[in-house]
Parts: sequence; C-alpha cells; structure tokens
Amino acid sequence: MNLSIDEARLSRELETLGAISESPPPVTTRVLFTEADRRGREFVKQLCRDAGLTIREDAVGNTFACWLGKDPDLPAVGTGSHIDAIPNAGRYDGTVGVLGGLEAIRALARGNFRPRRSIELVIFTSEEPTRFGIGCLGSRLLSGLLEASAAEQLKDRSGTSLDQARLQAGFAGPLSGVRLRDGYYSAFVELHIEQGPILEARQIEIGVVTAIAAPASLRIWIEGEGGHAGAVLMPDRHDAFLAAAEIALAVESAARSTGAMDTVGTVGVCDVFPGAVNSIPSRVRIEADVRDIDQARRDDVLRKIAETCNQVATRRGVPIRIEPLNADPPAQCAPAVVDVLIQACDACGFRYMRMISRAYHDSLFISRIAPTAMLFIPCRSGFSHRPDEYASPEAIGQGTLVLAEALASLAGAA
Amino acid sequence: MNLSIDEARLSRELETLGAISESPPPVTTRVLFTEADRRGREFVKQLCRDAGLTIREDAVGNTFACWLGKDPDLPAVGTGSHIDAIPNAGRYDGTVGVLGGLEAIRALARGNFRPRRSIELVIFTSEEPTRFGIGCLGSRLLSGLLEASAAEQLKDRSGTSLDQARLQAGFAGPLSGVRLRDGYYSAFVELHIEQGPILEARQIEIGVVTAIAAPASLRIWIEGEGGHAGAVLMPDRHDAFLAAAEIALAVESAARSTGAMDTVGTVGVCDVFPGAVNSIPSRVRIEADVRDIDQARRDDVLRKIAETCNQVATRRGVPIRIEPLNADPPAQCAPAVVDVLIQACDACGFRYMRMISRAYHDSLFISRIAPTAMLFIPCRSGFSHRPDEYASPEAIGQGTLVLAEALASLAGAA
Repeated sequence: MNLSIDEARLSRELETLGAISESPPPVTTRVLFTEADRRGREFVKQLCRDAGLTIREDAVGNTFACWLGKDPDLPAVGTGSHIDAIPNAGRYDGTVGVLGGLEAIRALARGNFRPRRSIELVIFTSEEPTRFGIGCLGSRLLSGLLEASAAEQLKDRSGTSLDQARLQAGFAGPLSGVRLRDGYYSAFVELHIEQGPILEARQIEIGVVTAIAAPASLRIWIEGEGGHAGAVLMPDRHDAFLAAAEIALAVESAARSTGAMDTVGTVGVCDVFPGAVNSIPSRVRIEADVRDIDQARRDDVLRKIAETCNQVATRRGVPIRIEPLNADPPAQCAPAVVDVLIQACDACGFRYMRMISRAYHDSLFISRIAPTAMLFIPCRSGFSHRPDEYASPEAIGQGTLVLAEALASLAGAA
Repeated sequence: MNLSIDEARLSRELETLGAISESPPPVTTRVLFTEADRRGREFVKQLCRDAGLTIREDAVGNTFACWLGKDPDLPAVGTGSHIDAIPNAGRYDGTVGVLGGLEAIRALARGNFRPRRSIELVIFTSEEPTRFGIGCLGSRLLSGLLEASAAEQLKDRSGTSLDQARLQAGFAGPLSGVRLRDGYYSAFVELHIEQGPILEARQIEIGVVTAIAAPASLRIWIEGEGGHAGAVLMPDRHDAFLAAAEIALAVESAARSTGAMDTVGTVGVCDVFPGAVNSIPSRVRIEADVRDIDQARRDDVLRKIAETCNQVATRRGVPIRIEPLNADPPAQCAPAVVDVLIQACDACGFRYMRMISRAYHDSLFISRIAPTAMLFIPCRSGFSHRPDEYASPEAIGQGTLVLAEALASLAGAA
C-alpha cells in the first residue's frame, strides 16, 4: 500500500487546535466542559465530518467518529486519544493521537484502502484530572472501571457535579449507558508523544509501548488552626501549611526511597486558606500523584505517605484526612497488537524500541476491554504538560504513518 | 465627669459592620477598595455624620471625622483604627477602635463634655496587607514612612496599581499630599482587641501598650521547571513547590531558634503554578511574615531565611528571588500618653497591665509623628484573623469608656 501523510495539513490542524485555549498562545489550557473544550470538540468534529466519518457522542462526551467497514457487524478497530489540556499545557499531548488518528484514516482513504472492519476514532472525555480530580474519566466509564453511580458523585472545586457540568455541555442520558459492550473493539491503538526524553536521546523514531505504569492520586485535607501571624506564639500554633510542607517533602522522599527510577511522586496542587500573609493557615488541601510500573512498590509509597500524614497530624495537632482519588493497576499491552505495531514500523522502515509508559493514558483503561497497545513518538527534551512541549511535524508524520499501516492491518482490506 | 457607654448600640453597629462582607456570616472579608470596603466606609461615615462630626478624606482614602474643639488651631487629639479585614476574618479587629472611638466621642458629647482641642477619629486605609502586600498603607503615608513615589509603584496580584485602585474607589489627588504636617496631633490613642490570650487569662480589663513589635514581610518567588508528573524522573526534577516547602519549614525553625517567645514567623500565602495534580510545579510564590519586639533578633531570622533560600536554590536548581515588602523598626509608646491611659483606667476603676503588642497596628507608624499609645481589651482565647474572633460587649464598653476618659484628658475641657 502506498500511503502518504499530509504533514503540513496535520501541523496546521494541531496549531489551530492548540490556539483554542483559555490562555493566550503559546499556552494551551482546555479544561473539561469549558468554552475552549467545547470549541476544540467542535473543531475536531467538523474535520471528522469533512473526512466523511459518522459521529456519535455518549452521555459523558466521549466522541466516536466512525469509518464504516465493509463488514460493520465485526468488532471495530479503535484509535484515538484526548484533546483536553491541563492549565498551562502545550499543544501535542493527546491531540497528536486524535488529529494523527484522523489523518491516518484520511491517508488510508486517499490510498484507496477500504477496511473490512470499521475503524473508529475516539476522542476520550477528560483524560486529564483537572476538573473532577480523576483522570481518564471517559475511558474509565467506557471500560466499566468507574461505575456510573460513583461518577455521579464527582464534584469539581466549585461544587458543580459531573451531571450538572455534562448537561450544561449538552451531554445527556444515563452515565450507565456509556460502558462499551464486551468485544466492541477487536483492537485499539493510541498514538501519543512520549512525554519523556528517551526516543529523542536515542534518535529512534517510534516507541512501541508494552506496559503502562500504575497511577494513583490522593487529595489530602489538613485542618489547622488559624490566627494572627503576629500574636499567636510559635509553640501554640497548629499551622496547616507547615504540615502540608512536611507531607510534600515526604512524598518526594518516599518516591526516591524505592531506589527504582520508575517510581515518581508529585504534589502539584496546594490551596492555602485563608491565604493572607499575616494569617496562620487554617486549612490546606494538597493533591499528590504517585506512579510506578510496579504496583506493589507504588502501594508501598502510598503507605509511607499515609504514615507521614499520621505522624504529622499527631505532632502538629492538625487533623489530616486522605481522600484516595484513584489507584489503578498497571496495564500490559496485548502482544498481538504490539506485534502488529512492530510489523508496521518495519514496513515503514523506521527504527523502534519497546518501552514502558510512565504517564498514564486512556489506553490504560481501554486495555481492560480490548487488545490494546500504544505508539510513542519523540518530543523535545521530554517536555510535556508545559507550553514548550513540542514534537516535530516529521516525527508526528512518522507516527501517523505507522498508525495508518497498523490500522490497515488490524482492520483488514475489504 | 459622668460618662456612660451605650454598649448595646455599639454592639449593633459592630454587628452591622461585620455583616458588610465579601463572605457570608459569620465570616468577615473586607479587602481594600472592594465593594464591601466601600459599603463599610459609607456605613461608618454616615454614623459619624449622624454624630455631628465633619468628614475629610485624603488621596489614599484615610478618613478623618472631626469633633471641632473650642481651640481648633491647637493640635488635635487623634483616635481610630481600621475597618479593612483579611479574607476569612472576624468582626472586631480594627472595627472596635473605629466604632469604639466614635462611641467614646458620642459619650463625651452626651456627657456635655466640650473639648478644647479638636478630637479626630481616623479610619486608616488598608492596615491589612491583603491587597498590595504591605500593611498600614494609610498610616505609612500619613507618617511619611512610605514615600508617595514608592506607593505609586505598588501593584496588587492582578497587576492593578494603587493609583488605579484608589481612583476607581473615588480617591483622587496626589499621594504626596497625604502626609500629615508635623505636630498635627498632640496625642494619638488606638483602642484594639488584644489578639492574644493574656488579658483574658488574667481577667484584666485593660492592656496599656508600651511598645509594638517590629514587623517584616517578604515575598519569595521560586522558579522551578514544570513537566509531566508521570514522566519526569525524580533526579531530573526542579520542583518549585518542594523548594517552597523547605523554605516554609525554615521560616518556622528560624523563628523558633531564637529561643525568645516574642519571635514569630509565618508563611501565610502559597500560590502554586500551574496547580494541576499531574504537573510538576514550575513556579511558586510564598509570602512570609516575621516579627519580634527586638529588631536585631528579627533581622537575624530574616538572614537565616535568606540563607536557606540560597541553599535550596543551589541544591534544587531553582532560582529564588526574595522581595522584601517591609521591615519596620519597633515602636515605643509615648510615656506621657501611657500615663494618661493608666490614669483613665484608675478613674474607671478597671484593672490594667502594661503590655507589648506583637501584632502591628497603625499606631506603629503614627508613633513616628505623634505621641502615641494603645489600649487593648481582652478577646476570646486570643483568637484573631478568624471568624470566631470575639470580644464581649462588656469588654468593648470598658475599653471605650477608658478611651473616652483619656480623650477628655488629652483634649482638655473647653
């Protein structure tokens, strides 16, 4: 098959989508069900319609753009990723898998390929945990790993429930209907930037992901005692922020203490109340993220963090409550799909390496219900979740070409 | 003189003012030049007009309500405090000195006292540092300890300048005109809740303040390197929040290391950017407050904090910039005014004790240009800068009565 990727067009589309943002360029911020999210979805859906795909949306906003195969009753082949972006993010995380997936389908159509199985592009809702504190909201519901009843309990920081937010965004119907039926996909492939420095450093075009690290995240509430920063003596204090500082440093040391490179721990959120220079913090909320490819080792880190919270709570006299947001097992990719990806790399003449994803992806959950694997492409310096995140048009084009080859192989010719 | 304080009326007025707030009751939040601040000012000015006082406002919004004496060319006697309140504050900090000062004047008028010197009630602008990062904005300008040119450089977190904010609030004219002429006040007395637990614990009605501790505050900017919380390995990180956590703990230990009860250090503000659970903090701003009645000891603490910042910056590879917001000397109260306050306590038959104010007040700055002292009344558990701050109507009435006696003595009978 003679496939050609339109790198220039794909670059322009990524650029246009990147500029749909709550923050001025070069920053991309596109949080779930905001106006920027709505406009981003609309932009991608219009491109899908232009490509002749049929669009379906579910009750949580997962969007499916289907290229009907000759044998539409067979389980489809899926590809896709997400377009939501955390505050102060870049333009490539997720979007490369969505717009690259679309371009792969267009390239197949241009190459006169006609699929036997349907090929479906998925735009997953809220891979990022920004709004409701839990990542991969859409794929968790699709795979049944998040119950509809639990999802209905979710609230954002302002107290808006997921149900209110999705209804306002135009997504109605019961969340229980989101779950895909068993065997819906015969295979699923997600194209993504590496978000790490390995492929760039080794000058390898493609990473074939064989496993995805196990993520966990916690919200930690610390109740101190406020007071006047001038008048309350040091021994009489119950400062919630100092407790938070100790916990954050404990997250770092617990992650480092495993001695394994693959363990990471981060406190990315810290809200201090009341937040005045002359007022002792009375209440602090932090959010911690811990990951490892080894689930037992990750759970050890979580236990150490909980122990520190207990010690700090007792020593400082500040009640601390840990609210686990998620603690998922790692995913093994499907060997058969991994093999197809490797064959596609060979067919394109690209070097590849097998690798592990330390970042999580919607594939972590889709792997529970379908044979799944991922393709990584290099990104500059491994930067991600920041405005200078960058992948070259060439690298994106190469990843898209491999994806197109793989989709053709997985769907079969009509 | 037979003076009687209308405790019930004063309580009602304090309650009404407390309910003028950006937050729902029982919380009071009244930040400089917000709508709540404007309404609070209007409420107090109307009460002053009702009492027959003449109102003048300066270019930064300091408000002067004058009871003209028989000899208006003599330097006046001043009293007053502030009505701005930090986020999540209570109802008594500052307001007791303003509404109590007004009731003292009304009580004198009801008692048919006629003053020789004018008695002037002052509502100082922005004793709290909430908006522009610097406390006692009004009294600093009145005393000339803050130059108008420096005040013009001030900006709030959103980038609004003091000049823009005061103009929007209706306060025009050059800031250089705010400074009071030398000898404007013959004496100044500020009534305030103690904001500490001593008077309550000892069951003493009145604290006569003989000195005010020296405050200093710093804004600390930490520039880390952002990135994906899953993908960047621990040894490769430059996490701005972990640096902030170390600095906050160093502020605590530096304040404790002096061994003196009077040294306090607090980090009350911490803003984390971008503030997402799966993103390594790339930038953090904290604000620290350090106080001591001994200036040299306080400055030692500031030096230790700066040393820690240097060490943390080097060790973590995160540039850190310290922006000193203020570092003021302590104030000694005027012995002659202290004597008048003690005589007033005796005249009222109240127990008193001499004490030091660890919180700063506008009197810290007014003491530079006028003989100044302060009256403290007990407040529950020493709580302040929190919604459950409380002083009883009786305690407020007693403080107001002593203030009235002292003002009469300082102003002289016509």
